[in-house]
Amino acid sequence: MMQDARWLAAAAALAGRARPSSRPNPGVGAILVKDGLVVARGWTQAGGRPHAEAVTLAAAGAAARGATLYVTLEPCAHKSERGPACADLVCASGVARVVIGCMDPDPRTSGAGLLRIRSAGIEACYTPSPACERSLSGYLISKRLGRPEVSLKLALSLDGCIALDSGESQWITGPQARAHTHAMRAKADAILVGGGTLRADNPRLDVRLPGIEHRSPARWVLTRGEVPEGWHALASPEAISEMSGIQYLFVEGGAAAATAFLRAGLVDRLLIYRAPILIGGRPALADFGLSRLSEAHGRWRMTERRQLGSDTLEVYETANASEPSLER
Amino acid sequence: MMQDARWLAAAAALAGRARPSSRPNPGVGAILVKDGLVVARGWTQAGGRPHAEAVTLAAAGAAARGATLYVTLEPCAHKSERGPACADLVCASGVARVVIGCMDPDPRTSGAGLLRIRSAGIEACYTPSPACERSLSGYLISKRLGRPEVSLKLALSLDGCIALDSGESQWITGPQARAHTHAMRAKADAILVGGGTLRADNPRLDVRLPGIEHRSPARWVLTRGEVPEGWHALASPEAISEMSGIQYLFVEGGAAAATAFLRAGLVDRLLIYRAPILIGGRPALADFGLSRLSEAHGRWRMTERRQLGSDTLEVYETANASEPSLER
Repeated sequence: MMQDARWLAAAAALAGRARPSSRPNPGVGAILVKDGLVVARGWTQAGGRPHAEAVTLAAAGAAARGATLYVTLEPCAHKSERGPACADLVCASGVARVVIGCMDPDPRTSGAGLLRIRSAGIEACYTPSPACERSLSGYLISKRLGRPEVSLKLALSLDGCIALDSGESQWITGPQARAHTHAMRAKADAILVGGGTLRADNPRLDVRLPGIEHRSPARWVLTRGEVPEGWHALASPEAISEMSGIQYLFVEGGAAAATAFLRAGLVDRLLIYRAPILIGGRPALADFGLSRLSEAHGRWRMTERRQLGSDTLEVYETANASEPSLER
Repeated sequence: MMQDARWLAAAAALAGRARPSSRPNPGVGAILVKDGLVVARGWTQAGGRPHAEAVTLAAAGAAARGATLYVTLEPCAHKSERGPACADLVCASGVARVVIGCMDPDPRTSGAGLLRIRSAGIEACYTPSPACERSLSGYLISKRLGRPEVSLKLALSLDGCIALDSGESQWITGPQARAHTHAMRAKADAILVGGGTLRADNPRLDVRLPGIEHRSPARWVLTRGEVPEGWHALASPEAISEMSGIQYLFVEGGAAAATAFLRAGLVDRLLIYRAPILIGGRPALADFGLSRLSEAHGRWRMTERRQLGSDTLEVYETANASEPSLER
């Protein structure tokens, strides 16, 4: 069973290649294993088709017979104009066993994919995998909660400032951290800034990395007022469910927008880029409604830390997930 | 020569055992090496005597003959009522070679110790060692600049806050971080808080760790007013040279005291204990006089990072030292 978890984690890593080009479909990864060796692998292709299972089984051909298919998301049970149901492909493939990392909350599949495979006499099981869950976080949150997954980016000094008192904010972090931010933008479906930041900085919010400039996501601004051409307006964080079709939202600030999303309890991930400087200036956040310090604890757990030049990136996720944190 | 740097670093690590009990003398470490093996080692004893060289050479006896003595600080050249000059002990010991990590800025020795050893026909050299320099930082700063080394401790949330807007500040960090702070207090000669913190919290600022409670340092408060019994007053950071006999000063806040020391350019080390929480409350620092962001960069380099439960300790030193930072 330990091996199953590892193969699922490997499939989840493969699924990363599908994001964001698989839009509007979830980015799924699959690995076909026989006697401990990889027979084939695949991930959701651009535009959402073919699905990961279809890619993997086509690559394997007759070699699929008797193998185990590891797949991050339950194979779909519904035929569409764009392709066959993956559950049917699996049943016809000759695989001996299927291990699924996440059940699909889409009501057209939800359990039906697994059931169809089992009904065909194939051993099939759902093995809950935090790695698979994380790789599908935006898809799962959008299906379960009817809103995008929200990642809040903060670029801070050691003392938690985002600007001098004068407003000067360029730059806190260095070029490696800023390039990393562009790569994170490229993985999002939409980026949002506050109205004040839009007026003050007129940010481009595009992806300026060679080769993936075309991945610039939709641009949103938190405002009840007019927006410039090419921008979308979100009246308040609570209106987030109106952002239809968006699974991954990247909130880039400023302080008012970050505070509003935290106050609404609508932040799933924090990306904190921290520069080794002290500023004594404008804070990253205002009061978001804590009444006691004890309420602040236990909400976030670190899942990643990496050095980006002289800056540090730390990623925190809401602490309700099952995976252990990176505390060392 | 690479080996010399490593033996000096080992001697510097040994010197850590001398602090703070060697007061008022600097905590020095010494290692005697022959054919790549340690013959003897020692460090400055409680109260400052015997010195590290005396301890080490006494332990080695006749085995010192032909060995190399690594010592973090230049052997003293001045006799005192409390003991012989270490340079004389070295000359009489039979050692073949002496490697010194820091020259002693004390005018009674400053070069005279090294010269006396060389004059006795013993190979002796000064090999600048960042590890030795760091192990003697408070002594060196007090001799060179006439003031203590200043370590500023900040216990912060991810967003750089030290309290809720209501003032509630207990606790930001967890028990492991707070125990570490007590261990840091035990290494200091004096602890300082601001007048507001003294009035608001009436902190004990003592060392509450089993076995080293007696190491609680002197308590200072940054104020122009009256101080309670058992406390000393410092009128302003600029008056720091009046803290005679204090080599290591640990500043524990609050925000006004931290800001005042930064504004005066009188912070040598930052100890940042950071809890994985967001607060949106009172900032750690106020404006300390930066006029441009570019002035903030390049001032601090990380020298240590460690996990303390769910909190992280990062140590930064002023960036003018010669050792590479821990950037990874």
